[in-house]
This record gives sequence, C-alpha cells and structure tokens, in this order.
Amino acid sequence: MTRLVDCDVHNAVPDDAALRPYLPARWLDHMDHVGSRTFSPYEAGFVYPKVSPGGGARTDAWPPGGGLPGSDLDFMREQLLDRYDIDLAILNCLYRAAEQRNEDYGAALATAVNQWQVEHWLDRDPRLRASISVTFESPELAAAEIRRAAASHRGFVQVLLFPRTLAPLGRRRYWPIYDAAQECGLPVGIHFASTTGAPITSAGWPSFYIEDHTSMSVAFQAQVTSLILDGVLDRFPRLKVVLIEGGFAWVPPLMWRLDGLYHRLGAEVPDLARLPSEYLRDRVRITTQPMEEPERPGDLLELIEEVGQHILMFSTDYPHWDFDHPKRAFQTKLPPDVHDRIMRGNALDYYDLGA
Amino acid sequence: MTRLVDCDVHNAVPDDAALRPYLPARWLDHMDHVGSRTFSPYEAGFVYPKVSPGGGARTDAWPPGGGLPGSDLDFMREQLLDRYDIDLAILNCLYRAAEQRNEDYGAALATAVNQWQVEHWLDRDPRLRASISVTFESPELAAAEIRRAAASHRGFVQVLLFPRTLAPLGRRRYWPIYDAAQECGLPVGIHFASTTGAPITSAGWPSFYIEDHTSMSVAFQAQVTSLILDGVLDRFPRLKVVLIEGGFAWVPPLMWRLDGLYHRLGAEVPDLARLPSEYLRDRVRITTQPMEEPERPGDLLELIEEVGQHILMFSTDYPHWDFDHPKRAFQTKLPPDVHDRIMRGNALDYYDLGA
Repeated sequence: MTRLVDCDVHNAVPDDAALRPYLPARWLDHMDHVGSRTFSPYEAGFVYPKVSPGGGARTDAWPPGGGLPGSDLDFMREQLLDRYDIDLAILNCLYRAAEQRNEDYGAALATAVNQWQVEHWLDRDPRLRASISVTFESPELAAAEIRRAAASHRGFVQVLLFPRTLAPLGRRRYWPIYDAAQECGLPVGIHFASTTGAPITSAGWPSFYIEDHTSMSVAFQAQVTSLILDGVLDRFPRLKVVLIEGGFAWVPPLMWRLDGLYHRLGAEVPDLARLPSEYLRDRVRITTQPMEEPERPGDLLELIEEVGQHILMFSTDYPHWDFDHPKRAFQTKLPPDVHDRIMRGNALDYYDLGA
Repeated sequence: MTRLVDCDVHNAVPDDAALRPYLPARWLDHMDHVGSRTFSPYEAGFVYPKVSPGGGARTDAWPPGGGLPGSDLDFMREQLLDRYDIDLAILNCLYRAAEQRNEDYGAALATAVNQWQVEHWLDRDPRLRASISVTFESPELAAAEIRRAAASHRGFVQVLLFPRTLAPLGRRRYWPIYDAAQECGLPVGIHFASTTGAPITSAGWPSFYIEDHTSMSVAFQAQVTSLILDGVLDRFPRLKVVLIEGGFAWVPPLMWRLDGLYHRLGAEVPDLARLPSEYLRDRVRITTQPMEEPERPGDLLELIEEVGQHILMFSTDYPHWDFDHPKRAFQTKLPPDVHDRIMRGNALDYYDLGA
C-alpha cells in the first residue's frame, strides 16, 4: 500500500568526477580543457543559503561522511525515506546541463547525468523514481535524450525543465520536447531553478533573494500561460505538465484573469478549443512545496478547493532549506479524502506510478 | 551585357493597406483588432534620420507624388536604375515580419510582403530581383515560406535575415532556414537592421546613433563567427551567405584572431573541417556599402586584396541616407579587373544572375 509519495527530492551530482564514467573521450577532454560555459553563472544569485557547491541545502543535510547534500543515498534514506515512511520519491536532479552554451557538450552531460542516476539511484532503491535531465534549450537534442533515457529504464517518470528559459516554453522551438515526452508517456515537470542570464523580473534585477524567490513563481505563471495560449496542450493532447516548487496560490487569480481576457480577446487565439482555466484543470498538476500559508490558516482549504483537489501533489524538496515536513506542512487539517489525494493519490494517477 | 549590379536596394511597403490584398480574413481581422506586437519597438533607436514611418532615407528620396521613400517604382527608376544605368538591382524589403511575437501573424505578413513584391516590383521591371521576407525567429515557418516563394517566382534570389537575432544564427534552431535556402539554391543575406529588444552591445545600450551604427558591424562579426564555428557551413555544404551593409574592414582582423585561436583551441570545435578563414573566403560574400574609408585612401586597395577580390559585391543602399554613388564610392582607383568583379562579376556568379 502506497501511503506517501514525495514528488520533489533532489539527488546531487557530487562533482564532475562522478560523471566521467559516462562521458565519451571527446567530452572528457572538453571537460578538462574547456569546461563549463553557461548562459548564466551559478553565482547569479538565486540560491540560498550561499554555499558553493551545494547551495540551497538544510544545514543538517550535509552527509557526515562528506560530499554534497543529496549526494549520499544512505544518508537520504536515513533523513528522508525511512524517517517519514516515504513509499515513492521522485528525484529531480538539478544539474544544469541545459545552460551549457556548447549544445553538444550539454547533451553529453545530460546523458551522463541520466546514466549516473540509473546506476547510483534507480538501481539501488526500489522507492526511487527520477526525472530525465535534458538540454531544453536544444530541443532536438533533448527529444533524443528523452527517448533514449525512457527506453533505458522504467524508473524515469518525468522530463525535467526549468522555468527560466530563453523564450516562453509555448514557442514552437520547444515543441520537439513535448512530442518526445508525449510519445514516451512522460509528463514534463517544470522545477524552480536556473537563470537565463536575463533579469528574473520584467523590471530588472531585484536586490534581494526574497524577490528572486518570489519572482520564480511569476516565471511559472508566465510558462503555464504560454503553454496554454501557444496551443501546446492542444497540439499535444496527451502531454502532461507538472509545476514543481512554484507555489499554487496564484492559480485562481491567474485563471480568472485569463478566462476574463479570453472572453474579450479570444479572437487573438482562435485555435484554443477551450477556456484557459480548463486546460490547467485538466492537464496540469502542481506540487505543494513551498506550501502556501494564507493569513487565515483555514483559507488553505478553500484555496485547495479553488485550485482543485486533484491538482496538488505533495513534495518535501529535501534536502533544501525550505523543506516541507510531511506531517506539519499543512497549516490546517484537511478532510481525509483530500489529504489522501494530495499525499499519494494524485501522484499515483498522474505519474502512473502504480504500474 | 550586365555592367552594374546593385546588391542592396530598398523597396518599402507603403502601409498596412498595401498588404491587405494578400492577407487571409483571419489576419486581416488580427491586423485591425490587435495589430503589431514585436520584440522591439521601431522606436528602439537604430534608424537615422528619425522620421516615422520612412526613417533612414535620403531627404530627396521622398516621392513627389507622396508615399514613403522606396515605395514608388517610377521614382526609383528615375533616381536610381535609369540615372546610374543599373542593369540588375536586388531589393531587400526591410519590413520586419520576423519581429512579430505572434508567430503565425508574422508568417502571414511575410507571405503577404513577398506576394506584394511579385506583383508590384518583380513583375513590373525586368531589372529587379528580390529577397524573400521570412520570420527567421520561427525557422520552421520561415523554411515553408522560402520554399513557397522560391517556387512562386524566379525573381527571388535570396533569403533575408537580420543580424540582431534572439540567438546567434549558428544555433540549431535556425537550421531549418538553411536547409530550405540550400534546397532552393538561394543565399541567405544578412542585412543591417532590426533589434531584439536587447542591447546592441555587450556593454549595454549605447548613448548615440553613431554607436548603434558602429555596433551593427560587431553583430555581423558575431553572426559570421557563429555560422562558421557552429558548423552551419559544414552541415549545409551548398549554403551561401551574404553580409549586407555590415562593412568589411573587420574581416581580416577577425579572421586572424579566429585562425589563431583555432590553432590553440581547435579541440573545442573538432568538427570543423577547415580553418575559419577558409569558410569565409569560400562561402561568404559581402556587399560594399557603407564603403570602408581607410585613413590613407590607397589602403582601400590593400584591404580589398586582403578580404579577397572575389568577396565584395557593390551596393548603393538606395534610398537610405548613407547611399553610395556607383561612380564615387571608392576613395581610390581600382585596377579594372578588380573593379569589374566588384561592380558586377562577383554578384552575377554568386547569385547566379546570368541564368
């Protein structure tokens, strides 16, 4: 009996050396002599607390035997899987292969990350599932890796994207990713992270980490709006989308606005078959961490109803600093059936984890 | 006998009404009720002199009967074709369909521009050839338009791109354009213009138009470097590239630097079959306007030799303010055979205009 599914856990690539067994000679040489050249230096400032590498983690999540938070499976079992009786956990490795400016090197790294995940994680604990790392700014290469990885191991249950892309994710250039994901029956999961080198807000570079963290949820809103209005969900009728660590309190106001505008300006998007909000309700799922905390705790229940009981899927975000405890995450007591859906049922259904 | 080929002449779409006969009902409705929404407002500041619409033109180029500079074929005949005995002129219509954020609207506009060019220009004067307007930021749609337009009229001799793209033109996302251009036997011509909404320099937005105009040549250098190093010229072995209105004095120093680095860092681009400069010399052509003006006039001849006699193709840039007069453009007297190549032979060969 699956009682608890954690939809957002981070395993970390310890260092470049961990990927070396999976890289061909050409890219080993590149790693040694050229190395990482990205759109956005890691120092761009969205990681708190600032520790490099390994930033963003709980201070108690550094494995006693050394290495980065999330890099030691035994310690993850102790701190997360065993401690909270988690039956299934979806690993989202945040290694940022997609930001490599050398497209082929990025693709080689993504493949290496996925092979490393199979050998060091999926094959070592039956509770683990994983997302496929892809170079989403090189959609053709990403599509090839999705097909390769999905065929290589049944533990891959998702394609991992980030919300800070070089263009809105609905644009045609990204469609090969959706084609491959749909073909493989995998949702695309968009996870808080990354930068493009461009400001996170349309008003420019904000001063504080708080603003970065806040604005990340605006990026999610922009992406889901793009996916809907640019017709991705019509074009790929079996494509599933998961929004991970982007909050969910913004869903009702965004949908109101979108639906309202659709009634007035729908002629600009005549190919949409349905109201924008209907796409979100039918096709999109959202993980819970960081849990929304309304001013009046009881309003959380109302919010969940408004978003839709079937939309939300529980997540801890282990080992990051803003971890949500499975028993303390909700400010208010939920009806048992709603609680059960969020803690397990919705994820089992959407990710087809029962199979 | 073809004595003079002008490789850069601008015909102007007079106004939205001129395109209406070529737009389907859906996009007429869009034009009326939504209209233009671009990456970069026309006011972004790269046009001098500032007159909207019609900016950039010689003050004497406004047709006496009204309308924009470059919109009246009879006046163009009088001011350019007949006056200078130009045998063939290549029209580069700078209508910026590619900057439309609605990809389908942009594509409809590009098609309309090309149909308008056939009816109002190519079919009306046998001296005219034209470039195909495409939405290069939507490469799949651009490729379709290239194939459509090329099949529709033999007067189309080039595909028109601008150097201010959302990503360097060597990136995979643009490859469908090159595939179509190569298939149709048409060069891609990259012409001074456009903005992406991002600063034209890597140091930010410059204060003066002079800096904009200067920096445009840096954009050309970035683009030709990208086309070479990203392997476009290897991948598309029959693709031709023309750089239009970006200067050419930068060619030698850029090639020196590229070749020098290639000797040291070639391992980063192991798929390149040849020295970077060899790609430029074999595969790229460059129009002359704005003519380079070395401090010592005689150095122009040395520069032309250094770039390659076979590389340069004469252009006037009529009707713009920095027009080059066919008889006064060169500061120094060229040997007759070199002059002949630049004024006619190189263009006849490269564009295959003799056919």
